[in-house]
Amino acid sequence: MSQRGKFIVFEGGEGVGKTTQAKLLAQKLQELKQKAYVTREPGGDEIGEKIREILKSYPKIDSICEILLIFAARRDHFVKLISPLLDEGYFVICDRFYDSSLVYQGLLKNISIKDMMELKRISIGAFEPDLTIILDVNTDISLSRVATRNLVNDEYDEMSQKKHEIVRRGFQKTASIFSFRSVLINAEGSEKAVFSRVWKTFEKKININE
Amino acid sequence: MSQRGKFIVFEGGEGVGKTTQAKLLAQKLQELKQKAYVTREPGGDEIGEKIREILKSYPKIDSICEILLIFAARRDHFVKLISPLLDEGYFVICDRFYDSSLVYQGLLKNISIKDMMELKRISIGAFEPDLTIILDVNTDISLSRVATRNLVNDEYDEMSQKKHEIVRRGFQKTASIFSFRSVLINAEGSEKAVFSRVWKTFEKKININE
Repeated sequence: MSQRGKFIVFEGGEGVGKTTQAKLLAQKLQELKQKAYVTREPGGDEIGEKIREILKSYPKIDSICEILLIFAARRDHFVKLISPLLDEGYFVICDRFYDSSLVYQGLLKNISIKDMMELKRISIGAFEPDLTIILDVNTDISLSRVATRNLVNDEYDEMSQKKHEIVRRGFQKTASIFSFRSVLINAEGSEKAVFSRVWKTFEKKININE
Repeated sequence: MSQRGKFIVFEGGEGVGKTTQAKLLAQKLQELKQKAYVTREPGGDEIGEKIREILKSYPKIDSICEILLIFAARRDHFVKLISPLLDEGYFVICDRFYDSSLVYQGLLKNISIKDMMELKRISIGAFEPDLTIILDVNTDISLSRVATRNLVNDEYDEMSQKKHEIVRRGFQKTASIFSFRSVLINAEGSEKAVFSRVWKTFEKKININE
C-alpha cells in the first residue's frame, strides 16, 4: 500500500516562474521514479472548469460572489483531484492555492482575511500544503517577463507596477504568516539557477522516501 | 424620494403553494397601487443563471461545493436584483431564501448550521427578510400536490415522504429560531383560503404606507 503523497504549492505574482518551476520539480521527481502530477488553480473536474468559465467571462464580477465561486472551484479541485492523488501516493504540485486568494482577493479586492479563512475552513477544513514555495522577484523583472507573454485576457497580467508591488509584498507576508509550511525563494536568474534553489529547499523540507 | 421597500420571503417544502401565494401577494399589492416584484432562488443576473445551470447539471455535486455555489448565486441575486429593487421602494417577494439552505443543505446534506450562518454573513451580511411566511401543510397534502406537477427533473420534488417530513419539521424549526421575522401559516385549503391567512399576517406585520 502506498504512502500518502505530499502537496507542494508554487505561489507568487505573475512572471515569477511558477509554471516553469512546477514542471521542473515534477520532471526531477519523475527522474527519481516518484509519482508526480502538476495541476493549477482553478482546476479539477467539469464543475471547476465551468466555474472557471464564469470567472473568465465576467471580469467585473462582484468580489464576494467571486470569492465564493473561487472557493467552490477549490473545493471541487480538492475532492476530485488533489485528495485522491495524495491517497495514491502522488506528489501533487499545484500552481497557486489559497495564498493567492489571500493576496488577490484579500489585498486587492478588500475581502477580509477573517472571511477568507472561514471560507478556507468550510471548503477544505484543516488541509494545508506540505510545502509552499513562494517565488519572489523584483517587480521590474516580473513585469518584463509578463510583457513577453501574450496573455492579454488574463486579469492578473494586466496589472500595473503598483499592483505588482502590492502582490509581491502580499506573498512576502503570507510566507511569514504561514512560515510552518512556506519558504520564500529568490526567483531571479536563469530557470536552472532558480530550480537549483527550489530543489535544495524541497530536499531540505520533504523526505521523498518517507 | 421613495421609501426603502420590504423584502418578503415565502418558505416551505414542495407543494405547499409558495409560488402561487407569492403571485397572489404581488397582485394584491399592485391592486393597492404598490410596486411589487416576484423573484425566486436561485435567480438574479446572468451569473446566477449560470450557477443555476451548474447546480441543475450535476445533481450529485459534492455538498460543500454545492453550498458555496448556492451562496455565490444568492450574493449575485442580492446585489443585482433584490437590493436595487428595495432601494427603489419595491416590495420584493422571493420564493425561497436562505432558510431553504438551512433545511435542504443543513438537515438533508449535513452541512453544519454554523458554517451556513458564516456563509450567510459573508454573502449578505446582516440582511434579513422583513417577513418570512412559512407555508405549512400535512405531508400527505404536499405530496399529492407535487404528484400533480410534471417536475421530474427537480431534485426537491423527487423526495420521499420521509424527506418531506424532515423538511416540514425543518421549516417549523426555522420559524421558531427566526421568530422575529417568521410566521408559520397553515397552508391547507383552497388558494383563496390560504391567501386570506397570508394577507391577514402581512397586514399585521407590514405597514404598506410606512
